[in-house]
Amino acid sequence: MKIATLHDLYIDQLQDMHSAESQLIKALPKMAKAASHPKLREAFTNHLEETKEHLERVQGLLADLDAKPGRKKCEAMAGLVKEGAEIISDDADESVRDAGLIVAAQKVEHYEIASYGCLRTFATLLGHTGQARVLAQTLEEEKGADKLLTRLATTAINVEAMA
Amino acid sequence: MKIATLHDLYIDQLQDMHSAESQLIKALPKMAKAASHPKLREAFTNHLEETKEHLERVQGLLADLDAKPGRKKCEAMAGLVKEGAEIISDDADESVRDAGLIVAAQKVEHYEIASYGCLRTFATLLGHTGQARVLAQTLEEEKGADKLLTRLATTAINVEAMA
Repeated sequence: MKIATLHDLYIDQLQDMHSAESQLIKALPKMAKAASHPKLREAFTNHLEETKEHLERVQGLLADLDAKPGRKKCEAMAGLVKEGAEIISDDADESVRDAGLIVAAQKVEHYEIASYGCLRTFATLLGHTGQARVLAQTLEEEKGADKLLTRLATTAINVEAMA
Repeated sequence: MKIATLHDLYIDQLQDMHSAESQLIKALPKMAKAASHPKLREAFTNHLEETKEHLERVQGLLADLDAKPGRKKCEAMAGLVKEGAEIISDDADESVRDAGLIVAAQKVEHYEIASYGCLRTFATLLGHTGQARVLAQTLEEEKGADKLLTRLATTAINVEAMA
Protein backbone atom coordinates (compact mmCIF):
# COMPACT_ATOMS: atom_id res chain seq x y z
CA MET A 1 0.00 0.00 0.00
CA LYS A 2 1.19 3.46 -0.84
CA ILE A 3 1.28 5.66 2.25
CA ALA A 4 0.47 9.17 1.09
CA THR A 5 -1.67 10.57 3.91
CA LEU A 6 -1.92 10.36 7.69
CA HIS A 7 -5.04 8.25 7.13
CA ASP A 8 -2.93 5.73 5.16
CA LEU A 9 -0.31 5.70 7.91
CA TYR A 10 -3.04 5.14 10.52
CA ILE A 11 -4.40 2.14 8.57
CA ASP A 12 -0.86 0.83 8.04
CA GLN A 13 -0.13 0.98 11.77
CA LEU A 14 -3.46 -0.65 12.65
CA GLN A 15 -2.54 -3.47 10.25
CA ASP A 16 0.88 -3.68 11.92
CA MET A 17 -0.82 -4.15 15.30
CA HIS A 18 -3.17 -6.71 13.77
CA SER A 19 -0.12 -8.76 12.82
CA ALA A 20 1.61 -8.03 16.15
CA GLU A 21 -1.35 -9.08 18.32
CA SER A 22 -1.92 -12.19 16.17
CA GLN A 23 1.71 -13.25 16.64
CA LEU A 24 1.47 -12.57 20.37
CA ILE A 25 -1.62 -14.76 20.68
CA LYS A 26 0.46 -17.65 19.37
CA ALA A 27 3.46 -16.84 21.60
CA LEU A 28 1.78 -16.24 24.97
CA PRO A 29 0.61 -19.84 25.57
CA LYS A 30 4.23 -20.99 25.07
CA MET A 31 5.45 -18.35 27.49
CA ALA A 32 2.79 -19.36 30.04
CA LYS A 33 3.83 -23.01 29.67
CA ALA A 34 7.51 -22.12 30.13
CA ALA A 35 6.86 -19.98 33.22
CA SER A 36 7.50 -21.68 36.56
CA HIS A 37 6.18 -19.16 39.07
CA PRO A 38 2.39 -19.56 39.32
CA LYS A 39 1.85 -15.79 39.40
CA LEU A 40 3.83 -15.31 36.20
CA ARG A 41 1.98 -18.15 34.50
CA GLU A 42 -1.28 -16.56 35.61
CA ALA A 43 -0.16 -13.15 34.30
CA PHE A 44 0.63 -14.60 30.86
CA THR A 45 -2.63 -16.55 30.77
CA ASN A 46 -4.66 -13.49 31.72
CA HIS A 47 -2.82 -11.34 29.23
CA LEU A 48 -3.60 -13.87 26.50
CA GLU A 49 -7.31 -13.21 27.05
CA GLU A 50 -6.67 -9.46 27.01
CA THR A 51 -4.61 -9.81 23.82
CA LYS A 52 -7.45 -11.66 22.08
CA GLU A 53 -9.73 -8.77 23.03
CA HIS A 54 -7.16 -6.25 21.73
CA LEU A 55 -6.98 -8.07 18.39
CA GLU A 56 -10.77 -7.99 18.11
CA ARG A 57 -10.72 -4.25 18.79
CA VAL A 58 -8.13 -3.67 16.05
CA GLN A 59 -10.24 -5.77 13.68
CA GLY A 60 -13.27 -3.65 14.58
CA LEU A 61 -11.41 -0.38 14.00
CA LEU A 62 -10.18 -1.57 10.59
CA ALA A 63 -13.66 -2.79 9.61
CA ASP A 64 -15.19 0.58 10.60
CA LEU A 65 -12.75 2.23 8.19
CA ASP A 66 -13.56 -0.31 5.42
CA ALA A 67 -9.98 -1.56 5.63
CA LYS A 68 -8.66 -5.10 5.74
CA PRO A 69 -6.13 -6.55 8.19
CA GLY A 70 -3.56 -6.83 5.38
CA ARG A 71 -0.86 -9.42 5.04
CA LYS A 72 2.26 -7.53 6.08
CA LYS A 73 4.01 -9.24 8.95
CA CYS A 74 5.04 -7.06 11.88
CA GLU A 75 8.80 -7.67 11.74
CA ALA A 76 9.46 -6.10 15.14
CA MET A 77 7.03 -8.44 16.91
CA ALA A 78 8.57 -11.35 14.99
CA GLY A 79 11.95 -10.37 16.46
CA LEU A 80 10.50 -9.92 19.94
CA VAL A 81 8.80 -13.32 19.82
CA LYS A 82 12.05 -14.89 18.61
CA GLU A 83 13.85 -13.44 21.64
CA GLY A 84 11.19 -14.94 23.90
CA ALA A 85 11.59 -18.32 22.18
CA GLU A 86 15.36 -18.18 22.72
CA ILE A 87 14.82 -17.65 26.44
CA ILE A 88 12.39 -20.59 26.55
CA SER A 89 14.90 -22.87 24.80
CA ASP A 90 17.84 -21.80 27.02
CA ASP A 91 18.77 -24.38 29.60
CA ALA A 92 18.28 -21.99 32.51
CA ASP A 93 17.21 -22.51 36.09
CA GLU A 94 13.46 -22.12 36.49
CA SER A 95 13.55 -18.78 38.26
CA VAL A 96 16.19 -17.37 35.87
CA ARG A 97 14.07 -18.41 32.92
CA ASP A 98 11.14 -16.63 34.58
CA ALA A 99 13.25 -13.48 34.89
CA GLY A 100 14.16 -13.77 31.19
CA LEU A 101 10.54 -14.31 30.21
CA ILE A 102 9.63 -11.10 32.04
CA VAL A 103 12.28 -9.18 30.08
CA ALA A 104 10.90 -10.55 26.80
CA ALA A 105 7.33 -9.77 27.82
CA GLN A 106 8.13 -6.22 28.94
CA LYS A 107 9.81 -5.53 25.59
CA VAL A 108 6.62 -6.74 23.91
CA GLU A 109 4.46 -4.55 26.16
CA HIS A 110 6.60 -1.51 25.40
CA TYR A 111 6.33 -2.16 21.68
CA GLU A 112 2.57 -2.12 22.07
CA ILE A 113 2.60 0.94 24.33
CA ALA A 114 4.53 2.89 21.68
CA SER A 115 2.21 1.66 18.91
CA TYR A 116 -1.08 2.31 20.64
CA GLY A 117 0.18 5.69 21.85
CA CYS A 118 0.91 6.76 18.27
CA LEU A 119 -2.35 5.25 17.00
CA ARG A 120 -4.38 7.12 19.59
CA THR A 121 -2.69 10.41 18.60
CA PHE A 122 -3.41 9.73 14.92
CA ALA A 123 -7.06 8.80 15.62
CA THR A 124 -7.56 12.04 17.54
CA LEU A 125 -5.97 14.15 14.78
CA LEU A 126 -8.07 12.39 12.13
CA GLY A 127 -11.26 13.12 14.08
CA HIS A 128 -11.96 9.46 14.90
CA THR A 129 -12.91 10.27 18.48
CA GLY A 130 -14.57 6.93 19.19
CA GLN A 131 -11.58 5.02 17.83
CA ALA A 132 -9.21 7.16 19.93
CA ARG A 133 -11.19 6.11 23.04
CA VAL A 134 -10.90 2.42 22.15
CA LEU A 135 -7.16 2.79 21.53
CA ALA A 136 -6.69 4.69 24.80
CA GLN A 137 -8.38 1.82 26.67
CA THR A 138 -6.06 -0.75 25.06
CA LEU A 139 -3.07 1.51 25.79
CA GLU A 140 -4.00 1.62 29.49
CA GLU A 141 -4.36 -2.16 29.59
CA GLU A 142 -0.92 -2.65 28.01
CA LYS A 143 0.57 -0.24 30.54
CA GLY A 144 -1.18 -2.22 33.29
CA ALA A 145 0.31 -5.47 31.99
CA ASP A 146 3.77 -3.88 31.96
CA LYS A 147 3.37 -2.60 35.53
CA LEU A 148 2.24 -6.02 36.75
CA LEU A 149 5.36 -7.57 35.21
CA THR A 150 7.58 -4.97 36.91
CA ARG A 151 5.87 -5.77 40.21
CA LEU A 152 6.38 -9.51 39.72
CA ALA A 153 10.02 -8.93 38.71
CA THR A 154 10.93 -6.74 41.64
CA THR A 155 9.09 -8.77 44.25
CA ALA A 156 8.98 -12.50 43.64
CA ILE A 157 10.72 -13.59 40.47
CA ASN A 158 14.12 -11.91 40.40
CA VAL A 159 14.71 -12.48 44.07
CA GLU A 160 14.18 -16.20 43.50
CA ALA A 161 16.51 -16.03 40.50
CA MET A 162 19.18 -14.74 42.88
CA ALA A 163 18.87 -17.76 45.15
CA MET B 1 26.04 -19.06 26.01
CA LYS B 2 24.23 -21.10 28.60
CA ILE B 3 22.09 -18.90 30.81
CA ALA B 4 22.02 -20.53 34.22
CA THR B 5 22.10 -17.61 36.63
CA LEU B 6 20.79 -14.06 36.87
CA HIS B 7 24.37 -12.93 36.25
CA ASP B 8 24.34 -14.81 32.91
CA LEU B 9 21.00 -13.25 32.00
CA TYR B 10 22.35 -9.80 32.89
CA ILE B 11 25.38 -10.31 30.59
CA ASP B 12 23.11 -11.72 27.87
CA GLN B 13 20.87 -8.64 28.01
CA LEU B 14 23.86 -6.27 28.03
CA GLN B 15 25.10 -8.05 24.90
CA ASP B 16 21.62 -7.70 23.40
CA MET B 17 21.77 -3.94 23.98
CA HIS B 18 25.27 -3.84 22.54
CA SER B 19 23.87 -5.26 19.31
CA ALA B 20 20.75 -3.06 19.52
CA GLU B 21 22.65 0.21 20.02
CA SER B 22 25.14 -0.75 17.28
CA GLN B 23 22.31 -1.33 14.82
CA LEU B 24 20.67 1.93 15.85
CA ILE B 25 23.89 3.88 15.23
CA LYS B 26 23.72 2.68 11.62
CA ALA B 27 20.00 3.42 11.26
CA LEU B 28 19.76 6.90 12.81
CA PRO B 29 21.74 8.77 10.11
CA LYS B 30 19.35 7.32 7.50
CA MET B 31 16.37 8.41 9.57
CA ALA B 32 17.85 11.89 9.99
CA LYS B 33 18.44 12.12 6.24
CA ALA B 34 14.87 11.01 5.51
CA ALA B 35 13.33 13.49 7.98
CA SER B 36 11.97 16.69 6.45
CA HIS B 37 11.10 18.78 9.51
CA PRO B 38 14.30 20.44 10.79
CA LYS B 39 13.37 19.77 14.43
CA LEU B 40 12.93 16.06 13.72
CA ARG B 41 16.20 15.90 11.81
CA GLU B 42 17.88 17.63 14.74
CA ALA B 43 16.29 15.20 17.21
CA PHE B 44 17.62 12.20 15.28
CA THR B 45 21.06 13.76 14.90
CA ASN B 46 21.28 14.57 18.61
CA HIS B 47 20.04 11.11 19.53
CA LEU B 48 22.74 9.58 17.36
CA GLU B 49 25.36 11.22 19.58
CA GLU B 50 23.51 10.02 22.69
CA THR B 51 23.29 6.51 21.22
CA LYS B 52 27.05 6.39 20.61
CA GLU B 53 27.52 7.33 24.27
CA HIS B 54 25.04 4.63 25.33
CA LEU B 55 26.95 2.02 23.34
CA GLU B 56 30.19 3.08 25.00
CA ARG B 57 28.54 2.74 28.40
CA VAL B 58 27.35 -0.80 27.59
CA GLN B 59 30.87 -1.67 26.39
CA GLY B 60 32.25 -0.31 29.66
CA LEU B 61 29.79 -2.31 31.77
CA LEU B 62 30.64 -5.52 29.88
CA ALA B 63 34.39 -4.87 30.20
CA ASP B 64 34.03 -4.29 33.96
CA LEU B 65 32.45 -7.74 34.20
CA ASP B 66 35.20 -9.30 32.02
CA ALA B 67 32.58 -10.06 29.40
CA LYS B 68 32.68 -9.54 25.65
CA PRO B 69 30.04 -7.86 23.47
CA GLY B 70 29.22 -11.21 21.88
CA ARG B 71 28.01 -11.83 18.38
CA LYS B 72 24.31 -12.49 18.83
CA LYS B 73 22.24 -10.08 16.80
CA CYS B 74 19.36 -8.36 18.58
CA GLU B 75 16.50 -9.65 16.42
CA ALA B 76 13.95 -7.23 17.83
CA MET B 77 16.05 -4.18 16.91
CA ALA B 78 16.60 -5.73 13.47
CA GLY B 79 12.82 -5.85 13.03
CA LEU B 80 12.40 -2.31 14.36
CA VAL B 81 15.06 -0.95 12.01
CA LYS B 82 13.43 -2.81 9.11
CA GLU B 83 10.12 -1.07 9.90
CA GLY B 84 11.90 2.28 9.87
CA ALA B 85 13.51 1.45 6.52
CA GLU B 86 10.08 0.59 5.08
CA ILE B 87 8.76 3.98 6.10
CA ILE B 88 11.78 5.68 4.51
CA SER B 89 11.24 3.80 1.23
CA ASP B 90 7.47 4.49 1.13
CA ASP B 91 6.49 7.14 -1.38
CA ALA B 92 4.80 9.34 1.22
CA ASP B 93 4.38 13.08 1.53
CA GLU B 94 7.19 14.64 3.52
CA SER B 95 5.17 15.36 6.64
CA VAL B 96 3.51 11.92 6.57
CA ARG B 97 6.91 10.28 6.30
CA ASP B 98 8.01 12.36 9.29
CA ALA B 99 5.00 11.09 11.25
CA GLY B 100 5.93 7.52 10.28
CA LEU B 101 9.54 8.05 11.27
CA ILE B 102 8.38 9.20 14.71
CA VAL B 103 6.33 6.02 15.12
CA ALA B 104 9.36 3.90 14.21
CA ALA B 105 11.63 5.87 16.52
CA GLN B 106 9.23 5.70 19.46
CA LYS B 107 9.02 1.94 19.09
CA VAL B 108 12.82 1.84 19.22
CA GLU B 109 12.88 4.08 22.31
CA HIS B 110 10.35 1.87 24.06
CA TYR B 111 12.39 -1.23 23.26
CA GLU B 112 15.34 0.44 24.93
CA ILE B 113 13.27 1.71 27.88
CA ALA B 114 12.10 -1.86 28.58
CA SER B 115 15.64 -3.23 28.22
CA TYR B 116 17.42 -0.66 30.36
CA GLY B 117 14.65 -0.87 32.97
CA CYS B 118 15.19 -4.62 33.33
CA LEU B 119 18.98 -4.24 33.23
CA ARG B 120 18.93 -1.65 36.02
CA THR B 121 16.77 -3.97 38.16
CA PHE B 122 19.17 -6.86 37.55
CA ALA B 123 22.22 -4.70 38.32
CA THR B 124 20.68 -3.62 41.63
CA LEU B 125 19.78 -7.19 42.61
CA LEU B 126 23.28 -8.40 41.69
CA GLY B 127 24.84 -5.71 43.88
CA HIS B 128 26.38 -3.80 40.95
CA THR B 129 25.36 -0.44 42.39
CA GLY B 130 27.61 1.63 40.14
CA GLN B 131 26.39 -0.18 37.04
CA ALA B 132 22.78 0.34 38.14
CA ARG B 133 23.46 4.10 38.29
CA VAL B 134 24.91 4.14 34.77
CA LEU B 135 21.93 2.16 33.47
CA ALA B 136 19.48 4.47 35.25
CA GLN B 137 21.10 7.46 33.55
CA THR B 138 20.75 5.84 30.11
CA LEU B 139 17.17 4.88 30.94
CA GLU B 140 16.32 8.50 31.75
CA GLU B 141 17.92 9.69 28.50
CA GLU B 142 15.91 7.16 26.47
CA LYS B 143 12.73 8.31 28.22
CA GLY B 144 13.71 11.90 27.43
CA ALA B 145 14.18 11.03 23.74
CA ASP B 146 10.76 9.38 23.70
CA LYS B 147 9.10 12.40 25.31
CA LEU B 148 10.75 14.78 22.83
CA LEU B 149 9.35 12.68 19.98
CA THR B 150 5.87 12.77 21.51
CA ARG B 151 6.16 16.55 21.81
CA LEU B 152 7.26 16.88 18.18
CA ALA B 153 4.46 14.53 17.05
CA THR B 154 1.68 16.30 18.90
CA THR B 155 2.82 19.82 18.07
CA ALA B 156 4.48 20.25 14.70
CA ILE B 157 4.75 17.05 12.70
CA ASN B 158 1.36 15.36 12.77
CA VAL B 159 -0.49 18.61 12.32
CA GLU B 160 1.49 19.22 9.14
CA ALA B 161 0.78 15.64 8.05
CA MET B 162 -2.93 16.50 8.27
CA ALA B 163 -2.58 19.43 5.88
